[in-house]
Amino acid sequence: MDRKLQIGVIGAGRIAQLHIDNLAYRIPEAEVVGIADINFERAEEIAKKYKIINVYEDYKELLGNPDVDAVFICSTTDTHSPVSIAAAKAGKHIFCEKPIDRKLERIIPVLEEIKKAGVKYQVAFNRRFDHSYKHVRDVVREGKIGNVHIVKITARDPKLAPISYLKDSGGLFLDMCTHDFDMVRFLSGSEIVEVTAIGTCLVDKSVEKIGDIDTAITTMKLSNGALAVIDNSRQAVYGYDQRVEVFGSKGCVCADNATGDTTSIYTVEAVTKNKPLWDFLERFNDAYVEEARCFIDSCLNGAEIKADANDGLQSIKAALAAARSWKLGGIPVKVEE
Amino acid sequence: MDRKLQIGVIGAGRIAQLHIDNLAYRIPEAEVVGIADINFERAEEIAKKYKIINVYEDYKELLGNPDVDAVFICSTTDTHSPVSIAAAKAGKHIFCEKPIDRKLERIIPVLEEIKKAGVKYQVAFNRRFDHSYKHVRDVVREGKIGNVHIVKITARDPKLAPISYLKDSGGLFLDMCTHDFDMVRFLSGSEIVEVTAIGTCLVDKSVEKIGDIDTAITTMKLSNGALAVIDNSRQAVYGYDQRVEVFGSKGCVCADNATGDTTSIYTVEAVTKNKPLWDFLERFNDAYVEEARCFIDSCLNGAEIKADANDGLQSIKAALAAARSWKLGGIPVKVEE
Amino acid sequence: MDRKLQIGVIGAGRIAQLHIDNLAYRIPEAEVVGIADINFERAEEIAKKYKIINVYEDYKELLGNPDVDAVFICSTTDTHSPVSIAAAKAGKHIFCEKPIDRKLERIIPVLEEIKKAGVKYQVAFNRRFDHSYKHVRDVVREGKIGNVHIVKITARDPKLAPISYLKDSGGLFLDMCTHDFDMVRFLSGSEIVEVTAIGTCLVDKSVEKIGDIDTAITTMKLSNGALAVIDNSRQAVYGYDQRVEVFGSKGCVCADNATGDTTSIYTVEAVTKNKPLWDFLERFNDAYVEEARCFIDSCLNGAEIKADANDGLQSIKAALAAARSWKLGGIPVKVEE
Amino acid sequence: MDRKLQIGVIGAGRIAQLHIDNLAYRIPEAEVVGIADINFERAEEIAKKYKIINVYEDYKELLGNPDVDAVFICSTTDTHSPVSIAAAKAGKHIFCEKPIDRKLERIIPVLEEIKKAGVKYQVAFNRRFDHSYKHVRDVVREGKIGNVHIVKITARDPKLAPISYLKDSGGLFLDMCTHDFDMVRFLSGSEIVEVTAIGTCLVDKSVEKIGDIDTAITTMKLSNGALAVIDNSRQAVYGYDQRVEVFGSKGCVCADNATGDTTSIYTVEAVTKNKPLWDFLERFNDAYVEEARCFIDSCLNGAEIKADANDGLQSIKAALAAARSWKLGGIPVKVEE
Repeated sequence: MDRKLQIGVIGAGRIAQLHIDNLAYRIPEAEVVGIADINFERAEEIAKKYKIINVYEDYKELLGNPDVDAVFICSTTDTHSPVSIAAAKAGKHIFCEKPIDRKLERIIPVLEEIKKAGVKYQVAFNRRFDHSYKHVRDVVREGKIGNVHIVKITARDPKLAPISYLKDSGGLFLDMCTHDFDMVRFLSGSEIVEVTAIGTCLVDKSVEKIGDIDTAITTMKLSNGALAVIDNSRQAVYGYDQRVEVFGSKGCVCADNATGDTTSIYTVEAVTKNKPLWDFLERFNDAYVEEARCFIDSCLNGAEIKADANDGLQSIKAALAAARSWKLGGIPVKVEE
Repeated sequence: MDRKLQIGVIGAGRIAQLHIDNLAYRIPEAEVVGIADINFERAEEIAKKYKIINVYEDYKELLGNPDVDAVFICSTTDTHSPVSIAAAKAGKHIFCEKPIDRKLERIIPVLEEIKKAGVKYQVAFNRRFDHSYKHVRDVVREGKIGNVHIVKITARDPKLAPISYLKDSGGLFLDMCTHDFDMVRFLSGSEIVEVTAIGTCLVDKSVEKIGDIDTAITTMKLSNGALAVIDNSRQAVYGYDQRVEVFGSKGCVCADNATGDTTSIYTVEAVTKNKPLWDFLERFNDAYVEEARCFIDSCLNGAEIKADANDGLQSIKAALAAARSWKLGGIPVKVEE
Repeated sequence: MDRKLQIGVIGAGRIAQLHIDNLAYRIPEAEVVGIADINFERAEEIAKKYKIINVYEDYKELLGNPDVDAVFICSTTDTHSPVSIAAAKAGKHIFCEKPIDRKLERIIPVLEEIKKAGVKYQVAFNRRFDHSYKHVRDVVREGKIGNVHIVKITARDPKLAPISYLKDSGGLFLDMCTHDFDMVRFLSGSEIVEVTAIGTCLVDKSVEKIGDIDTAITTMKLSNGALAVIDNSRQAVYGYDQRVEVFGSKGCVCADNATGDTTSIYTVEAVTKNKPLWDFLERFNDAYVEEARCFIDSCLNGAEIKADANDGLQSIKAALAAARSWKLGGIPVKVEE
Repeated sequence: MDRKLQIGVIGAGRIAQLHIDNLAYRIPEAEVVGIADINFERAEEIAKKYKIINVYEDYKELLGNPDVDAVFICSTTDTHSPVSIAAAKAGKHIFCEKPIDRKLERIIPVLEEIKKAGVKYQVAFNRRFDHSYKHVRDVVREGKIGNVHIVKITARDPKLAPISYLKDSGGLFLDMCTHDFDMVRFLSGSEIVEVTAIGTCLVDKSVEKIGDIDTAITTMKLSNGALAVIDNSRQAVYGYDQRVEVFGSKGCVCADNATGDTTSIYTVEAVTKNKPLWDFLERFNDAYVEEARCFIDSCLNGAEIKADANDGLQSIKAALAAARSWKLGGIPVKVEE
């Protein structure tokens, strides 16, 4: 390692801090050299804590710094696409929090611009970097379960997010399911062709009032002929319930929930085991490090990007089709419509 | 126990023998006193083996025997409804193999006739009598998982049945999924309102040639507002894959596959465990005894019938809706249409 | 099958009834033709229930019946050896409840007599016929875990037996651990050479008053150089805790407890699973049938006896050595002393 | 946090680096300000990597540095006790790798000196800081399983260490089992009173040549009347096999192995799961951080030391008793002898 990758971070919220911490302490090949946030004080505070030398209010100044090799875009969702375009024009490699955008007409130009600029672009589909999910994918790719017939995903959040957050989240399918649509593609190695979604409001009636749902089942037809299904809930009181299963002609591979420990308690009443880990930060703790490490490796050594802009695009397309199917009362909607 | 319930069995095929064996050896309260089959020799053979005193070619003669308190209808599917009606008219209690019929217009008269006759009528939904499934249902009923949000069922047969059988089976939804639709109703305590089904042929292309499918995902809306989903395959090479899960406002309860033993082998390559039990006879061995025992108990002591004619009707209605949804390209179909 | 094996049962207690039920309903190759018990009424009652034609007060009369091919000795422990000798002299094949006797000087003559008479002799080590334990043994025999290094057995009864029973039971090692010593030999395919035992009274102080213990750990050296350990308790409130593990140069194989069903419940408090089955009748239900079936098969078709008189002898030798080690304060005791 | 705890590290080997890495990146409250190693170059290299300002060849110079609040003793085992004494005399808090020493007469003075100096002293029993083991201990302490009857520990290394290492390791009991004896005390909350050990050489005959064993079973009587047992192997080819179980009057609590992921693969041959984690660095990765964090917390805020010098002493006493029992052919040896 001759030279560390010099990184600028755009945004200074929770997820930005998570990445900065990982870059500072877990990935020796990287160095955070700048941070930008419209809330300058917040950026300064983090800069102080992590000894980041350059602090900006305007991300464009950060992009103007020739020492910056790559940026992590951790600002609000609506800024992801314009910042991506500006960063690509500035010749920076880009790690962008998901989603790139919620509108196709704003994602397409990003793909064009990064192609033109020839920069690396990674979308933060952290689950692709989780040990268990990678193992499932590898088992599928190696043909151990034969041809894929059915992909099943359970994705349930532990706790309903505040209504204030949900209001601007884009709705269940765009906010929560994009990870799951990406998993369907990742695990099957196939594209989503058609989507049918049913949904309802069972966790909290306030969700209905903002025109959204909190419980849904989405089925899909894939380009290789296989079927897929996702079930979602905004609230599983026992923890972050994240399971996947791929069934094929020669067998089945699945990943169960991760738990906090491996204990069992036997009493006259029952056998008790530990609950699933509580949230995505606990569950995908290592995956966050791994996704950053892979991005740095791509920038420094040309390693393949494992979650690229097209992956970001396809996942949004599927989510939009699901949202449309649900609104139309559950009729099938083609993704390429 | 003053007097055993005198039973006549109609049909002398595999499932008839299974019931006769259970009635003879596992249920002291019952006695098989007659058997009828159009193949008289086959009936005679079984009669000899189990010391059944009366053997008939025509089931109507069996129904005419005043010593017979109750009948087990184990003849071919197309005979279930006419035999049911004749048995009801003869005042016999009836245990009928599933399905009652595949056509609603032939099931309705059965319900009317048994109502008129005031006889007991049980449909052979054996899964309702399985320890694990009963436990799941009890947990739901006791409110331990709160309000039901999602019911999920995986039902995969270990091996594709012969095409000759499949040709007359009524298709995947009517042949294989009626058990699963019944489980959705049984576990949720709620009715199926709307069904959407996608399906395809991935196990064997011969299935496509007879106009059927071997892989399907069916989603449902239930009368209590909950959602449900079933995934089916005609062939899971690793065994009879039968799992259920009910997710609710206060938790989740599920039943995993049963295995042949409890061993684990740890080697340098992997940790290996036993596979799921191979087929329905292994898996629901005890459930077959239990369903017969409960029926006998209803006849002798007036205990509640746990899978009645209406259960048989509702399951067929859901299956017909699913088949229709699939044929219409996956649009939602109301069950009451 | 030309002729059923004609069986006489000696004893009419709980275990006798269990065997009679299995012979009557589960094993078509056998027929119980006689029963003897010093409590004639009890014998008559069972005879009536199972339609057994000959009832005796004196077991010698049963042995005198030339129609009887084989006997099941289910009378009290102190009668096992004299009845065995008498039965052998009468030329009957013998299935004997465990133990043959608690004293070596009374077991040796049994072995001599059955050798002289050339009759089949099976001891009721039912665990050898359990699916999981057989699987463990097969994995070991097939060399899948290489050379055996350590055998570990956990054997805990669900509930302390009444003190009245324990008083005449011969003590923990002779009453409870003979099954476990047999398992060590069965799973390792090796003899027990030296035994060291520590024990104490923790479940109930009444056990101490009768000079016995309720909690023990016994270690062993085996003839193939491997080590073994058994831990015992007279009371595991959560159920019948029976687990085995064999560790070797190439891996490890173990059998976990069997449970009543396969359900899991996830709530905000915990994940709960079903408890181990409650007692030996539940846990080894199928093993009882299988051991009888194997014995019948040996008598009728010359199949190998899978738990013979020598197995009964060796297990008692180990138990006596363990009892001696415990009484001597935990010093090692050779089995051949 | 006003001021970080200033730490000096003595030794620059593998375990020293592990602690330095954790202190640098995972524990914000600490700062490594000095490192000493007789191999000065090695110390310098690490100092450079972690920006440690003071590098010494002689640990006494480090102890002389008034900025150093606490030391991590990571030098060779024979130096632990003299360095501990010198550090105590210098008024430094001490975190000492295990064991303090292998001889009682060299451990006692350490305890005296730290008492006199009033400094904090923690022994590196990392397992006390593992999530699962802590959970087991908490369940026991809270009385959920009632009075402790039996403690069971399985401790098997994945791979035989080189003979060159084993030769100077002090033997299986002193090198490998001290962790396990500490776990018996930790989980039971009770002292080890008497030890009986049997052992043999089954993994590799070279171990026998150096007068050691590679396979052992050790039983114990505890001061609260409970029994305990440990089984050890120097080589479990399937991974680092570390399991504990505490059985009591009201139930049982156990901690199973941790695995690399949560996947299962179902095929026509078997169900395969992931193996246990490979070694102590993988398995106790988080426990290493936690033990350091707790020590820092004790030094800065007076929190209780969770593995103190007496714990180190007691574990060695039990190991010495075990070694003596084994050498004497398996007779019981009192710990206080």
